[in-house]
Amino acid sequence: MPRYRLTVEYDGRPFVGWQAQANGPSVQRALEAAVHAFSGETVTVQGAGRTDAGVHALGQVAHVDLEREAATDKIQGALNYHLKPEPIAVLEVATADDEFHARFSAVMRHYRYRIVNRRAPLTFERGLAWQVAVPLDAARMHEAARHLVGQHDFTTFRAAQCQAKSPVKTLSRLDVARFGEEIEVSASAPSFLHHQVRSMVGTLKLVGEGKWATGDVARALAARDRAALGLNAPPDGLYLVAVDYDAAR
Amino acid sequence: MPRYRLTVEYDGRPFVGWQAQANGPSVQRALEAAVHAFSGETVTVQGAGRTDAGVHALGQVAHVDLEREAATDKIQGALNYHLKPEPIAVLEVATADDEFHARFSAVMRHYRYRIVNRRAPLTFERGLAWQVAVPLDAARMHEAARHLVGQHDFTTFRAAQCQAKSPVKTLSRLDVARFGEEIEVSASAPSFLHHQVRSMVGTLKLVGEGKWATGDVARALAARDRAALGLNAPPDGLYLVAVDYDAAR
Repeated sequence: MPRYRLTVEYDGRPFVGWQAQANGPSVQRALEAAVHAFSGETVTVQGAGRTDAGVHALGQVAHVDLEREAATDKIQGALNYHLKPEPIAVLEVATADDEFHARFSAVMRHYRYRIVNRRAPLTFERGLAWQVAVPLDAARMHEAARHLVGQHDFTTFRAAQCQAKSPVKTLSRLDVARFGEEIEVSASAPSFLHHQVRSMVGTLKLVGEGKWATGDVARALAARDRAALGLNAPPDGLYLVAVDYDAAR
Repeated sequence: MPRYRLTVEYDGRPFVGWQAQANGPSVQRALEAAVHAFSGETVTVQGAGRTDAGVHALGQVAHVDLEREAATDKIQGALNYHLKPEPIAVLEVATADDEFHARFSAVMRHYRYRIVNRRAPLTFERGLAWQVAVPLDAARMHEAARHLVGQHDFTTFRAAQCQAKSPVKTLSRLDVARFGEEIEVSASAPSFLHHQVRSMVGTLKLVGEGKWATGDVARALAARDRAALGLNAPPDGLYLVAVDYDAAR
């Protein structure tokens, strides 16, 4: 059966998350329904990142097996046509070999977290960014983030319901930069724990407003205790930006 | 009576436009209702640009007279509190002298038009940009725009219902630039005719896709005839970005 790799963008606001769940609409189910509508096939679409309710994607990657081969252009057009009422768009369709698995073949995941740091409430960006009214020092947040980069036991920054076997992860990048009233946190790692990015961003926000010193982040990490967490940021500002695979794939 | 100058951001999607109308919610009425809610005063809020239905603002400027003086910070907080359910935010409140009039004192208006040039439908940007699937050549669009900059009779680019006394306007800036899959058209002028920016953008789109030569834009302008217009772009991508006033004000 031919395997296809999909690059998918979605606005997470109306969804219970990527993964199919009984309690509401999911991105995965919407994609599976679109595949069924154009091919008549009942499939499972596998995604690289199981984004939570309200979390967005600019470049989620998924794969799907179809019984009948079709031109990638045609698949893209048909999926987007059937997805039309949903805020989901298939940006690219490519053929993939049988060894390719969107989730297990991924070697790096890139997330971005958007904070809009202003007093006025959001208009266009409602649900698409975290509005923080108190002035944040992005340079101090970036400095504090240095304590988290590298291989660590991230138990402090892990949701209670996290299913990962080990809390030890390697954080490849955690950069904080200000662009006008917007602060962007860029996080990259081969894989993340559940809520890890939001937990790190929430804690950095405390540093940005001066409630925590930069060293407090190191202490929270060393505690290896969820109770030491400063704050979990809301899903609104979180975007899965891209997923990397070995070039050989 | 103290006069205040408001800088206002809004998502135009749910509104019939800036101006109060019988047929639906307007930004002007929403602001007037917010002023009434916090001050008990029945006021008229005057705006610099009467944006159409579905047109957005990042920096609309308006003024309002209040009977009782109040701190600008307090006014901003109160207006935003009462505007809460609406996608309207007051970004700044400043005191203004009696001579200041948001509309008549304006010396320059800056608009931006956003085109997302890609095959896939929009997700986050639905109603916030114009999706154009055919590839557009932004450099040719920019070249064609040179024909429109300066003082001209813009009858071709004017809506039938335009109420301006004269079709002669001075276009100070019309730049087209590509940023990845997005094309931005930046237009500045002391004042615009009704639908002028959208009419110019629609015409430039025809140049971008190769249906019109750059010189066709000059011919359309010279025709001084609405029938010579190439295409009127949808309101979705249009933003009132900023309004300038003399520094003395």
